[in-house]
Amino acid sequence: MQELEVDVAVIGAGTAGLGAYRAARTHGKRAVIIESGPYGTTCARVGCMPSKLLIAAAEAAHMLEHAAGFGVHAGATRIDGAAVMARVRSERDRFVGFVLEGVDAIPAEDKLRGHARFTSPHTLQIDEHTLVRFQTAVIATGSRPFVPTELHNVGPNVIVNDDVFEWTDLPKSVAVIGTGVIGLELGQALSRLGVRVTMYARGGSVAQLTDPVVRETAMRVLSEEMDIRFQHLPLRATQHGDEIELTMRTTAGDEVTERYQYVLCASGRLPNVDMLGLECTGLELSPRGIPLFDPRTMQCGASHIFIAGDANAERPVLPEASDHGRIAGDNAGRYPDVRPGLRRAPLTIAFTEPNVVALGRSYRELSGEGKPAFAVGQVSFHNQGRSRVMLQNRGLLRVYGEYRTGKFLGAEMIAPRGENLGHLLAWAYQCRLTVKEMLDMPFYHPVIEEGVRTALRDLQANIDKGVPPEPPGPDRTPGI
Amino acid sequence: MQELEVDVAVIGAGTAGLGAYRAARTHGKRAVIIESGPYGTTCARVGCMPSKLLIAAAEAAHMLEHAAGFGVHAGATRIDGAAVMARVRSERDRFVGFVLEGVDAIPAEDKLRGHARFTSPHTLQIDEHTLVRFQTAVIATGSRPFVPTELHNVGPNVIVNDDVFEWTDLPKSVAVIGTGVIGLELGQALSRLGVRVTMYARGGSVAQLTDPVVRETAMRVLSEEMDIRFQHLPLRATQHGDEIELTMRTTAGDEVTERYQYVLCASGRLPNVDMLGLECTGLELSPRGIPLFDPRTMQCGASHIFIAGDANAERPVLPEASDHGRIAGDNAGRYPDVRPGLRRAPLTIAFTEPNVVALGRSYRELSGEGKPAFAVGQVSFHNQGRSRVMLQNRGLLRVYGEYRTGKFLGAEMIAPRGENLGHLLAWAYQCRLTVKEMLDMPFYHPVIEEGVRTALRDLQANIDKGVPPEPPGPDRTPGI
Repeated sequence: MQELEVDVAVIGAGTAGLGAYRAARTHGKRAVIIESGPYGTTCARVGCMPSKLLIAAAEAAHMLEHAAGFGVHAGATRIDGAAVMARVRSERDRFVGFVLEGVDAIPAEDKLRGHARFTSPHTLQIDEHTLVRFQTAVIATGSRPFVPTELHNVGPNVIVNDDVFEWTDLPKSVAVIGTGVIGLELGQALSRLGVRVTMYARGGSVAQLTDPVVRETAMRVLSEEMDIRFQHLPLRATQHGDEIELTMRTTAGDEVTERYQYVLCASGRLPNVDMLGLECTGLELSPRGIPLFDPRTMQCGASHIFIAGDANAERPVLPEASDHGRIAGDNAGRYPDVRPGLRRAPLTIAFTEPNVVALGRSYRELSGEGKPAFAVGQVSFHNQGRSRVMLQNRGLLRVYGEYRTGKFLGAEMIAPRGENLGHLLAWAYQCRLTVKEMLDMPFYHPVIEEGVRTALRDLQANIDKGVPPEPPGPDRTPGI
Repeated sequence: MQELEVDVAVIGAGTAGLGAYRAARTHGKRAVIIESGPYGTTCARVGCMPSKLLIAAAEAAHMLEHAAGFGVHAGATRIDGAAVMARVRSERDRFVGFVLEGVDAIPAEDKLRGHARFTSPHTLQIDEHTLVRFQTAVIATGSRPFVPTELHNVGPNVIVNDDVFEWTDLPKSVAVIGTGVIGLELGQALSRLGVRVTMYARGGSVAQLTDPVVRETAMRVLSEEMDIRFQHLPLRATQHGDEIELTMRTTAGDEVTERYQYVLCASGRLPNVDMLGLECTGLELSPRGIPLFDPRTMQCGASHIFIAGDANAERPVLPEASDHGRIAGDNAGRYPDVRPGLRRAPLTIAFTEPNVVALGRSYRELSGEGKPAFAVGQVSFHNQGRSRVMLQNRGLLRVYGEYRTGKFLGAEMIAPRGENLGHLLAWAYQCRLTVKEMLDMPFYHPVIEEGVRTALRDLQANIDKGVPPEPPGPDRTPGI
C-alpha cells in the first residue's frame, strides 16, 4: 500500500470539495482531493442544471397549452421526447464539462481515486491502495437519494433522479414518491411534457414550506394541474416486464395499486457519512450519524476535521455547498487559527411553477418554543395586477416581521417569479431592513414586486397593531 | 359664471392628481379636482396596463415560435387578432374600472369638469362656467404623445399609442416612429403578433439607455427579431385609402417610401403645460415651458403652486407620478409648511424582451463634467447559465461603482428578467450598499441573478485596480 503525507485531505470532489481544496491551497498547503465516483458535481450531473433544462422544456409545453388564453393558438402540438431529452443531456454535458475542466486543472498528484475511510483521527485509507496521513481533513462526501426499504431490489424501473437524466426519450408514466423540491420539480415538469404522473406524499409536506397557510395554497395550486396524493406510503412494488406495479397505502389504511413505467424515488436525500469510518475519528455524532459541527466555521467539535456541503445536511443546496466548502477549506488550511466564514441569508427555491420559495427565518423556526410572537402579512396573487396580465395569477406570499423593532424576519411563498422575489427579500433580510424601510424602496409598475408591497403593507399594519393579547399557539395564525 | 372658493385646486385627475387630492384632503382642507378629459389614468387607459396586456400575448406567440428549441413543437399556430385585442380591451377596462371606482368615491362637489387655465396666481377658470379661487394649487395635467409636424393632418391612419388599444383586430402593418420605451414595447409586441412592423429612429437611441455599450448591444439584440432603422426622419406622409404612404429621409439624405396600414407616432411625450395660462401665475418657466420646481417638495419656486407627474417631465413613469402627487398634495395641504417628501432610487423599465432597464445614476449622469471617474463591471448574458437553459441568453448588464468608497452607483442593461434584476439593484442602490456588501448577499443557483454577481465581481476587480491614470473622456469606457 502506498503512503502519502499531506497537510489537508479533502474527501469528495463535488462543489463543496472542490471549493475546499482550492481554499486550502491558498494557504500554500499540500492538499489532496479524493473521489470515488465519476467527476462532476451533483448540481451539474444530476441536480440543479439538468432539472432546470427539463423544466425549461416543460414551461414551453405549458405555454403552448395556455397561449389560447391570450388569443394565440398552437396547432397540433407535438412533444418530441427524444429531442427534449437530447437537449437536456447535451446541455447537461456542457455544464459537466466546465466542472471537469476545473478538475483537470488540479495537478495529478493532488487527485486520488477511490473510496476513503478514516482508519484513525489522522489517517484515511483509499480503497486498498493508499494510506493518507493528514494534518486536517474536510469531509465533503455529498448525499445520495433515499430509497424507502419497500422499494429496494424491485427492478430496474424503480429509479432515482440521477436516472431521469440518462433517458433518451420521455416515458409514458411515472409515479413520483415524495413531494419535496426534487419530486415536485421533476413531477411537474414530466407532467407538463405529457407524461402521466402521479405524485405520492407520505404526509402533507410541499417542498421546503413550513408555513401551514402557504403550504395549503401550494397543495391546492399544484394539485390543479397535477395528480398529487397526500398521506400515501409505499407498501410494495413489483417489476412486470418494463412496468412497476406499485401498491401504496393511505394513512387511513386503504391500499391503491397502479402500474407505471417508472417509480421515481424522491423522498429525501441521505448524507454520505455512513461508510466513512467516522467511528475511528473520535468525533461526536448526531443521531443521524453526522459529526456535530459549527455552522460558522464548519469545524467538527474542536477537532482538525471539517464538514461541508450536503454531507453535513445543514442546507443541502448548491450555494451553501459552495460557501461551506470555501469556509471548511480555508479553516483546514489555516488550522488551528479557525475563523468564522461568511454565511448568507437563507434562501431556498423550488423551480416549480409557481416557484416555491422560503427565505430568512422560517415560519416553523419563528413559531418555535420560547420565541417572541411575530406579525404576518400576506398577499394572494390571484388578483395581483401584473400576474393576472401574464395569466400567472396563482399563489400566496406570507411575510414575517418583528413587533418590537419592525424588522423584516423572513417569508414563505408559492409565487410567480418567486425566484426573483426571493432574492429581493433575502437581500432585504440580510440588510436587516425594517418593513418600513422596505416600503420606501422603489416598486415599478406593473410588476409582480407590487404584490410584495401589498404583503409588506399588510405586515406593517399588523406590526402597528402590536402583539395580540394572547400569544399565538402552534395552531393559530398570528398577526392576521 | 359660477364662483368657487377652495383651499387646494388640483388640475388633472390622473395618477398624480388623484394622489395629490387625497393627500391634500388628509389636512382637512377643502379641495377640488379638475378634469377635462375622460376619467381614468394614462397608466390604466393607454399606458402601462394595456401595453403589458399586448406584450403578454406577444410573449405567448413568441414562445410558440421558439418552443421547438426545447423539442416542443407548436404545429400550425394561429393568432386570433380579434381575441388578442378583445382580451387587451376587456382587461384594460377592468383596470380602468378600479380607477373609476376611486373617482366615484370622491364627493361630487369636489369634482369639476372642464379645461382649467390660470387667470391669476390665485384663480383658475374652468371652461366658461366656473371661476375657482384657491389658496394653493397642484398642476397634474399629465402628458400627451408628440406628433412630428410632418405627420400632422395626414389622415386617420396616423395614430398614437392611445389608438392602438381601441383596435378590435390586429392590423397588417405598422410603421413605428420612435425607439423610446413606448415605441419599442408596442413595436416588438405587434411584430411578435405577426404584424409587419418597421421601427424608425431619428438617431440611435434605445429606450432610456445612456450607456453606449449597453445601447449598442440593445440595438443588435432587438434588431435580430425586428426591422429597426436608425438615423431615419419622417419627411412626409399621405393617406391613400386605408393606408399611409410614408416617406422617411435618412441622415445621409436618402429617401425611403413605404406603405403601412398605420403610422404610430411614438417619438416622445409632451407635458400638458402649454394651455394652462401659466403666464398669469408669475412662475418662472424652463425653456420647455415647465415651471421650475424642487423635486423634493414639488414646489414651483417659492410659490403656492406645485407640479406633479408627467406634467413636470422629471421622470414620466407611473410610480413617480404617484410619489409626486402624494408629495405635492401633502405640501399643498400643509402650505406654507412645505416639507421634502420620500423620493426613491430611480428605476425605469421598458418591458421589451429582453427588458431594457436603468436604475440609480445613469451612465450619462456619471460621465458628466466635473464628476469623479467611476468603475464599470459587466456581464454578457450570452453564456449565462440559467439564461441559456431558458433560451433567453441575450443581453448585457453594466454596473457602476465608486472608486473611493466602493459604493454601487447604478446600472443599465438589456437583460432577461431585467425588470426583476432592476428591483434588486435599485434596492441595493437605495440602501447605499458597497459592491462588496452586494457580493456577500445570497445568490441561488441556477438563477439569472448569478449574472448580476458576475458583473459585480468584474466591477469590484476594476474598483480594486483604482482610478485609471488618465480620467476617462466621454468617448472612453472607463474602468474596463
